[in-house]
Amino acid sequence: MHQSETSNRSCLAIVLAAGEGTRMRSSLPKVLHAIGHKSLVSHVLTAAKKAGGAEIAVVVGPGRDDVAKEAKTTAPGAGVFEQRERLGTAHAVLAARDAIAKGADDILVMFADTPLVRAETLTRLRAAIAAGAAVTALGFRPKDPSGYGRLVMKGDELIAIREDKDASAEERKIVLCNGGLMALAGASALKILDRIGNDNAKGEYYLTDAVAIARDLGLKAAVIETDEDDVRGINTKAQLAEAEAVLQQRLRAAAMEAGVTLIAPETVFLSSDTVFGRDVTVEPNVVFGPGVTIEDGATIRSFSHLEGAVVGKGARVGPFARLRPGAKLGEDVHIGNFVEVKAATFEDGAKANHLAYIGDARVGAKANIGAGTITCNYDGVNKHHTDIGAGAFIGTNSSLVAPVKIGDGAYVGSGSVVTKDVPADALAIARGQQVNKEGGAARLRELYNKMKKAKG
Amino acid sequence: MHQSETSNRSCLAIVLAAGEGTRMRSSLPKVLHAIGHKSLVSHVLTAAKKAGGAEIAVVVGPGRDDVAKEAKTTAPGAGVFEQRERLGTAHAVLAARDAIAKGADDILVMFADTPLVRAETLTRLRAAIAAGAAVTALGFRPKDPSGYGRLVMKGDELIAIREDKDASAEERKIVLCNGGLMALAGASALKILDRIGNDNAKGEYYLTDAVAIARDLGLKAAVIETDEDDVRGINTKAQLAEAEAVLQQRLRAAAMEAGVTLIAPETVFLSSDTVFGRDVTVEPNVVFGPGVTIEDGATIRSFSHLEGAVVGKGARVGPFARLRPGAKLGEDVHIGNFVEVKAATFEDGAKANHLAYIGDARVGAKANIGAGTITCNYDGVNKHHTDIGAGAFIGTNSSLVAPVKIGDGAYVGSGSVVTKDVPADALAIARGQQVNKEGGAARLRELYNKMKKAKG
Amino acid sequence: MHQSETSNRSCLAIVLAAGEGTRMRSSLPKVLHAIGHKSLVSHVLTAAKKAGGAEIAVVVGPGRDDVAKEAKTTAPGAGVFEQRERLGTAHAVLAARDAIAKGADDILVMFADTPLVRAETLTRLRAAIAAGAAVTALGFRPKDPSGYGRLVMKGDELIAIREDKDASAEERKIVLCNGGLMALAGASALKILDRIGNDNAKGEYYLTDAVAIARDLGLKAAVIETDEDDVRGINTKAQLAEAEAVLQQRLRAAAMEAGVTLIAPETVFLSSDTVFGRDVTVEPNVVFGPGVTIEDGATIRSFSHLEGAVVGKGARVGPFARLRPGAKLGEDVHIGNFVEVKAATFEDGAKANHLAYIGDARVGAKANIGAGTITCNYDGVNKHHTDIGAGAFIGTNSSLVAPVKIGDGAYVGSGSVVTKDVPADALAIARGQQVNKEGGAARLRELYNKMKKAKG
Repeated sequence: MHQSETSNRSCLAIVLAAGEGTRMRSSLPKVLHAIGHKSLVSHVLTAAKKAGGAEIAVVVGPGRDDVAKEAKTTAPGAGVFEQRERLGTAHAVLAARDAIAKGADDILVMFADTPLVRAETLTRLRAAIAAGAAVTALGFRPKDPSGYGRLVMKGDELIAIREDKDASAEERKIVLCNGGLMALAGASALKILDRIGNDNAKGEYYLTDAVAIARDLGLKAAVIETDEDDVRGINTKAQLAEAEAVLQQRLRAAAMEAGVTLIAPETVFLSSDTVFGRDVTVEPNVVFGPGVTIEDGATIRSFSHLEGAVVGKGARVGPFARLRPGAKLGEDVHIGNFVEVKAATFEDGAKANHLAYIGDARVGAKANIGAGTITCNYDGVNKHHTDIGAGAFIGTNSSLVAPVKIGDGAYVGSGSVVTKDVPADALAIARGQQVNKEGGAARLRELYNKMKKAKG
Repeated sequence: MHQSETSNRSCLAIVLAAGEGTRMRSSLPKVLHAIGHKSLVSHVLTAAKKAGGAEIAVVVGPGRDDVAKEAKTTAPGAGVFEQRERLGTAHAVLAARDAIAKGADDILVMFADTPLVRAETLTRLRAAIAAGAAVTALGFRPKDPSGYGRLVMKGDELIAIREDKDASAEERKIVLCNGGLMALAGASALKILDRIGNDNAKGEYYLTDAVAIARDLGLKAAVIETDEDDVRGINTKAQLAEAEAVLQQRLRAAAMEAGVTLIAPETVFLSSDTVFGRDVTVEPNVVFGPGVTIEDGATIRSFSHLEGAVVGKGARVGPFARLRPGAKLGEDVHIGNFVEVKAATFEDGAKANHLAYIGDARVGAKANIGAGTITCNYDGVNKHHTDIGAGAFIGTNSSLVAPVKIGDGAYVGSGSVVTKDVPADALAIARGQQVNKEGGAARLRELYNKMKKAKG
Repeated sequence: MHQSETSNRSCLAIVLAAGEGTRMRSSLPKVLHAIGHKSLVSHVLTAAKKAGGAEIAVVVGPGRDDVAKEAKTTAPGAGVFEQRERLGTAHAVLAARDAIAKGADDILVMFADTPLVRAETLTRLRAAIAAGAAVTALGFRPKDPSGYGRLVMKGDELIAIREDKDASAEERKIVLCNGGLMALAGASALKILDRIGNDNAKGEYYLTDAVAIARDLGLKAAVIETDEDDVRGINTKAQLAEAEAVLQQRLRAAAMEAGVTLIAPETVFLSSDTVFGRDVTVEPNVVFGPGVTIEDGATIRSFSHLEGAVVGKGARVGPFARLRPGAKLGEDVHIGNFVEVKAATFEDGAKANHLAYIGDARVGAKANIGAGTITCNYDGVNKHHTDIGAGAFIGTNSSLVAPVKIGDGAYVGSGSVVTKDVPADALAIARGQQVNKEGGAARLRELYNKMKKAKG
């Protein structure tokens, strides 16, 4: 079954995001927790869109505007439906009845706390619907099936999904388990969903009953198999960490596949949106926050932390560098140890190699920022801009009190506090004169020792 | 068997800590090596106390005052006994004869180089004694049993512990192995121990013989099973690292269970005593030394290192922050990149976001410490205090020469060296005036290029 | 078979280094990629030399002077041969015909992209030649043999190496696979190699045919078995990372075996040439670049990065320290957080504990470098030297403008910019006087708030 077979079919993805997640022990709703710097619900929505889910319905808990807002950020056109009572998964799906009634060819039922599902898996679920099934379940084979719902098969056909506690001894031997996600044929979806009852111990409406009901209606149910990661649900902080680990492995593998040299991939933490050019090297222990682009031939050295930054061709960052949002490094820029860059542009060949903070600034091409240089961009109330010209040389331990402009080719003497603009090619010095007091150190030491004696 | 059944019985824990540990290739005694920033012997003593070991006897090698001292630190009332010759484990236990003679109901024999044993395992060993056994061995099932002593069973009863080299071909097939730790009934302990002989190849007195002797005396021996981690002994640096890894996994799992978000738990190193509040987030690559408390809602960002510090509610630390002993951060405090805090209190809402060293200081509420600020707390002989008032603003690259007091709401200009107190709401400036020399940079560059030419 | 049996035999190692490595997606030739900071080809050459390969022939692709140069760096006497066309492994080996013709007793055929082969494995291959085989293949048992060439045995004798695609159903069940490396008896090598034909689908000359040809000539072929790591070939960035991981595990295990305390070995990245003394402790998250020696009793704390540095006895480095090439730390030196040292000697007991850059300098014994101290070693054109005497005290936020000399016992006041030499025991101060403007902060704040209002 090829993707092309689903491409001219309409698709509604219903994303169930109403779970409370009390086992997360957090005041943040479960589905707003993130992996790879992207919320769980956003991962699921992204997969839905990639799999052709042109229409999206998100089912949220009562008053969960935060979840609705996050969903709209990823999927602006999504419909948001509130599930007012918690009466089971089928009840949650029917909260989106109006969306279902629009009559999409394929309906995907997804869970916002199952963020690792791949678009290709969803496409396979849809393809089974396109091939004639009314319901497609997603099966997987866990190492230990106990606790999972079992997929009861008869040849290739799915007969029923049996909850672990309802399974017979024979059924418990089944190793193919229910992964939760499901596809429904739009034509029969409401007919099936409306027949799901709540005649069970908990009095809830279970989506898993859809299989048996479909068969009762003379319709077919199918199964698509996948691996455990695809259906990994998140209920605890430990499971969140495991999902993060799986995602990181995928991101690292994709980066290496594209030619990035990750010396110790297990120590590099990527974001879902990290972009790499060709011949990039990333040393051990680097953390990428969201919004980072690394261009061809750049090297990110150990213990670097990057967020919202662009690193230009052949640039070198770190070790111990921090690029914050708005850092834009041109070609061959060097940012060295204990240097922080925020909302600042370094033009080609500019360097800040040691112990510096450059914020709200432009650093011209080939300018050299000495160790200990700090842009004083904040006066306690306002933020101001610093402009450093091409080829300028800023001496060590200088403070550039913004707003201030250092001209092209200017030279700022070490230890200067620059409060006025420096013209191009001028030399600015702003510091005290050196005085050497002969024997002064000896006298000081004597004094300090007396103080110590007096104290002790 | 419930813990309550052991709770009204008296218990002596004998901790054998006399091993030399030559395979550690270290001048430090083996049991003083640490995992989770806590010595091996201290881990064992903590477990003994948790399991109700009200009386503790530590058996140390000749002249090992350092081990005795460490034991007393964890268990102040512990009796210390010296094993003068190395004549085997039973001989080591009998070094504590005076403690045994006091007649505790249960006796636990523990090894100071087996630090991962859980109190609940010890309680189970004791419970078997309470249920009538004279000896309880601790069994486990390693992947490869070869080399381990085997537990020879007859139904539920333990018949003997057979050393690997003494085992018959049939006995070698036994997969239940001896974990080393043992419990003895106080009533019969000395009778058994005194009968252990040294008629073997090495001429040593083996505690494992206690089982067969107990049976000869018509007493019962039992086995409690546990997993391999509980009985993991440490003889090499590699085994020390493995034990650290197991401990870290336990500590991380417990933190996540309590609701801490560890994005990449495998990169977070905890101490045995790290304390977390609710809704705490810890990013990848954070190291916690001993004595750290993180309060509700705080975030510890990547590449941070904390020791002996309190991080207040909602505070943000890092990336690249170092909190040293005595750092106390109030609510919503921010400590940013390349900032070191030592023996300093940051009151609510105070910030030091970049490149600073704040030591021996108080920073008042909502004060803002500029980048590059350094408290000069050491004059080469004495340490002095810096006091920064609420709402004060310290300009970048300032040096605050202690002892010095910056008043509430005061403002220190960039690049100032403050040696005298600054009154509240005053502006302090201590720096040279800026002079711009037109064309000066061009002249300097010419000079430097000439120098280069002259050299080369 | 003992190594001594090979020690009086001559040996030629042919290293095939002509592969293009297009799957690396890199402009750097595959064999110049590094693991443990050492190129793949260099690893292989080192193993060849250790195994007694006194003569070495490296076969490179057309015009690959960079590979030739790297090979010569590791093995200066190596002969370099160009393989002009890519006609298979046997063709590549015959590119070194002149070296083979010199008549070494044993010939090792090695692959420059198989860097983890151990010298002892090579010695075993040679020993089999010494024992009478004309060809020795290296066998291993992968978890999944599919895709690998199979070693077809008849008792102890190797009959043929069968490519996976040419293997019969029966042969595909063979689990002993071809690791690639091979040894040939010098006496018959050319005779065999010259008979290898290219009558196959790709029209290439395959070295694996040597086995069947040897047997046709009435000679014997043998197999030496090894584990998968030894024969791990590198074709992709992911495989490069896996090889790095294996190498790191070996390096860490060797360090721990020698007594180094690695608290979390999986987070410590070593170089192939890192040297450790006794009782060294390395905390989690440390990266060692090439050329580092750590002497007895030194401690390297978390988040430290070292390259080309010597750390003296009992010295303490980090956390967050960076030692760059030429850093030489004497006994009991302390280098603390956010400190960078480059091409600088710290004599015994000297300290730089916080936020400093010391480059191109000597720091005398017991000198104390205050937080924020920076050596201004670069004027934009030239590098200059700073000399700090024994027992000197450099105040915080000082700039030492090189070339400059601070005498023994001298004292530099906080915030000074030192441009002239300071005599021994003198006190140097170079900063502005402090002025407190009463109410000045209040007025400033009012002004800034007005500015904000005006903007907003």
